Amino acid sequence: MRLSIDCRLRYDVRTPTSFILAIQAADGAEQDVNDETILLPPGITADFIVDAFAGNRFIRFLAQPGPLDIGYVAEVERRSVVDQRDFIGGEVVNDLPLTVLPYLNPSRYCPSDRLTAFARQTFGARPQGLGQAQAITDWIAASIAYEAGTSSGATSALDTLVDRVGVCRDFAHLGVALCRALDMPARFVSCYALDLRPPDFHAVFQVYLGGAWRTFDPTRRAPLAGLVPIGFGRDAADVAFAATFGDARFETKSIAIRRLETSSAPGN
Amino acid sequence: MRLSIDCRLRYDVRTPTSFILAIQAADGAEQDVNDETILLPPGITADFIVDAFAGNRFIRFLAQPGPLDIGYVAEVERRSVVDQRDFIGGEVVNDLPLTVLPYLNPSRYCPSDRLTAFARQTFGARPQGLGQAQAITDWIAASIAYEAGTSSGATSALDTLVDRVGVCRDFAHLGVALCRALDMPARFVSCYALDLRPPDFHAVFQVYLGGAWRTFDPTRRAPLAGLVPIGFGRDAADVAFAATFGDARFETKSIAIRRLETSSAPGN
Amino acid sequence: MRLSIDCRLRYDVRTPTSFILAIQAADGAEQDVNDETILLPPGITADFIVDAFAGNRFIRFLAQPGPLDIGYVAEVERRSVVDQRDFIGGEVVNDLPLTVLPYLNPSRYCPSDRLTAFARQTFGARPQGLGQAQAITDWIAASIAYEAGTSSGATSALDTLVDRVGVCRDFAHLGVALCRALDMPARFVSCYALDLRPPDFHAVFQVYLGGAWRTFDPTRRAPLAGLVPIGFGRDAADVAFAATFGDARFETKSIAIRRLETSSAPGN
Amino acid sequence: MRLSIDCRLRYDVRTPTSFILAIQAADGAEQDVNDETILLPPGITADFIVDAFAGNRFIRFLAQPGPLDIGYVAEVERRSVVDQRDFIGGEVVNDLPLTVLPYLNPSRYCPSDRLTAFARQTFGARPQGLGQAQAITDWIAASIAYEAGTSSGATSALDTLVDRVGVCRDFAHLGVALCRALDMPARFVSCYALDLRPPDFHAVFQVYLGGAWRTFDPTRRAPLAGLVPIGFGRDAADVAFAATFGDARFETKSIAIRRLETSSAPGN
Repeated sequence: MRLSIDCRLRYDVRTPTSFILAIQAADGAEQDVNDETILLPPGITADFIVDAFAGNRFIRFLAQPGPLDIGYVAEVERRSVVDQRDFIGGEVVNDLPLTVLPYLNPSRYCPSDRLTAFARQTFGARPQGLGQAQAITDWIAASIAYEAGTSSGATSALDTLVDRVGVCRDFAHLGVALCRALDMPARFVSCYALDLRPPDFHAVFQVYLGGAWRTFDPTRRAPLAGLVPIGFGRDAADVAFAATFGDARFETKSIAIRRLETSSAPGN
Repeated sequence: MRLSIDCRLRYDVRTPTSFILAIQAADGAEQDVNDETILLPPGITADFIVDAFAGNRFIRFLAQPGPLDIGYVAEVERRSVVDQRDFIGGEVVNDLPLTVLPYLNPSRYCPSDRLTAFARQTFGARPQGLGQAQAITDWIAASIAYEAGTSSGATSALDTLVDRVGVCRDFAHLGVALCRALDMPARFVSCYALDLRPPDFHAVFQVYLGGAWRTFDPTRRAPLAGLVPIGFGRDAADVAFAATFGDARFETKSIAIRRLETSSAPGN
Repeated sequence: MRLSIDCRLRYDVRTPTSFILAIQAADGAEQDVNDETILLPPGITADFIVDAFAGNRFIRFLAQPGPLDIGYVAEVERRSVVDQRDFIGGEVVNDLPLTVLPYLNPSRYCPSDRLTAFARQTFGARPQGLGQAQAITDWIAASIAYEAGTSSGATSALDTLVDRVGVCRDFAHLGVALCRALDMPARFVSCYALDLRPPDFHAVFQVYLGGAWRTFDPTRRAPLAGLVPIGFGRDAADVAFAATFGDARFETKSIAIRRLETSSAPGN
Repeated sequence: MRLSIDCRLRYDVRTPTSFILAIQAADGAEQDVNDETILLPPGITADFIVDAFAGNRFIRFLAQPGPLDIGYVAEVERRSVVDQRDFIGGEVVNDLPLTVLPYLNPSRYCPSDRLTAFARQTFGARPQGLGQAQAITDWIAASIAYEAGTSSGATSALDTLVDRVGVCRDFAHLGVALCRALDMPARFVSCYALDLRPPDFHAVFQVYLGGAWRTFDPTRRAPLAGLVPIGFGRDAADVAFAATFGDARFETKSIAIRRLETSSAPGN
């Protein structure tokens, strides 16, 4: 599937401010990024950096006071999604590759250390691996209400478990935390999403099952096949769309994802 | 300075359990590890793995039910510690190397996102960089009581800030969180420590200042020159001395650090 | 001082809903309430109830679905405020009257049990009683930023201590919690306030000193002499302006406090 | 049923300390207290005070430095417990007596304001009143593990809901919080309990149903008929067995409850 992405952000910069943006589509195993353009005002020079650990792509620059408009436009070719029935998972920790071990640890928004008893009690009887990951996803979808404005940057998976309400970021954090509590490596994925209403950034989570990262979306607000991952992290703290160091006020954003005709892309 | 390390751990393993140990002295910039021996029971085969991101060394193995004795014996040569007056720091985020950026993010035990107002109010007037890091260390030393048994694996830097009591791990977490809240990359360091009473694992923190990681110990319970780092992490979740996946009960530990005569080591 | 109060509330009631309102000025030691009128729609019969413990006045009724307008109009005569220098306080708990003992206990928004170490460290050297209460008030005024919209109904004094931001309710909760942590009985006071900008309900706190309840306002947003207490509680949970049991949405409120000419009130 | 109670407490008093003890059996509707003796060291004069709101009985005295032994010995006649099937409950808030309204509010250890969504989701379909109170009790008994030493004086019902472990005090707090979240007045009851193993103070909770307070014990560790209530509160903060203001270290306690032969008590 070919998708076009158009993302625009506007800030009011009050003092010289370092920006670190994570808005570029991930380039790698599941998708190829073509014709990518980053729009920055004249006079701004950016570093384009790739995190050696997770492969995340960041744009870093220093902005001077004044209005700031940023844009990202790209075409992405999504590969077909693997049928989830093909992987059962349930690896023991001793057999996991080194690179996934950090995703077993508790993190800022996913304090999995406190969820062990709840997770075992609620999901422990399900088959290890895919069975538990799917049960967790279904349980979140059934138990947590999706409601805009109900959480903040301080909301953790514990809060969401208690309050039973949140947005996509909170749903993903709870999924990550519950999987880790059952000794399954899990990570947070920021993404663009086709057919998300209203259009916005989105967040889902991945679990390491059967030798690869598999995607789950407990919000059920957009088709998995139309997701375009941006960054992969322990939780949202690692892949904030924009981290600012200085005084810059976010003003507006506009995001549009469209499906492109395959016929316009010879060879696909 | 040459130091000998002798560390023994005993577990009662109830079910087949994966262990991931982080008890080996770090081998790198600040110290060289010589004559290292890991003692495992017959029949156990371990992976010796090095985390590509932080260079941490882990020992991973699967243990069967029964008593389990683990040992680590090594000689370490510490290089001389740099005079802290030589680095001022205060780098802006835009000039930081990519590898230190993750240490700006909030983490499980260091929710720095909630400490910004407190940190700016209390330390914001101090000179950026070393001045603030030193002020934070001094403030923790003066404000937080060191008392064994007052915190648990669920205690975060917010708890320690409120409760004003903790152990070395909590002191380090609070230092890390406050530095990050002021946009300074900071990390947790698990270590061995000469002259620590009673002998035990220890924890301190490092701040990225003037192009390198500098060490601070707000507990002031052991000389900086006698610290032997083991692992570097976002917080204690990344460098637990022993993470177990299964059912294994920790029983006892015994740790001994001694200073070796330089004369016995020709060439040093 | 004579004051007129005019308070209007509007709700959209969705299901039959029990209301418990605490909007009437307290009638007692510090003020007399005259010419009080409660405006309720035709067909609603209210209970006017007085809490035997704290003397709080509540209006309770059952509202049927539809728009609901409530009004409260009154004239209040405030007695002169005692000069705070006249009471030193510092009573030991053994000499306190029985009725103030419950105000030593931690409560929902004032978990004073966790603030003992901080309070002793920060205020313990000040003279017991008025000295400490005044120091706490000054410290809150200097340390906590007043900013609308920064807290919610779930915010406790611990959050405010960490986040260093809040509104009048949060300032009062922190004052209450810190005083209790030093073994001083303290309570939350909801009130009307002359010259508060913008006009709204207000909240302050009282400490039991020298045999009586003394008032402190760490927000410093309105003169103490123009405060008109409504209710006294362990914290805001006891004296919510409106508690609703059912489904009723708060829509708007309008509050006006005016000072009346003494000459227009013969006999005063 | 006639029961004898023997309770002994020992403290090491370091500085002059005010004690407020709540260890006397409640004297009233459900039981009569006979032959009560309070044992205090020579030279200590106590106030015996009764809280006008809840009828709780407190012993208050000032102790000087030194060892302190306190004893309470009494005979209590329990009236027969009402069959729970006789009360359905489900009163609407508008019909509740004034004295029970405070038990609808969130409190220190029972932050019911945050449990509304969970309680409605989990128990909302059960019949209002007894049906919900019984379902909550059964759910706690099935979901929370009883384990000594797993909680502290800072543990709230939110913590217990997340961690799924606690002691009798935590079980009672969770029951109280969940009932209040469904608009049922609920209170914490400290008590003595026949056949509790090991002998100790105990805690249960009561819900206001069908015009009276009904008792529930989600720990199921002692028969309801053998409970001897001591105090009734919003939560444990109101009825601590011993609150001390000064520096006094608790050392040991010894509690014995025995059933007395009815034949030895002519007239019963």
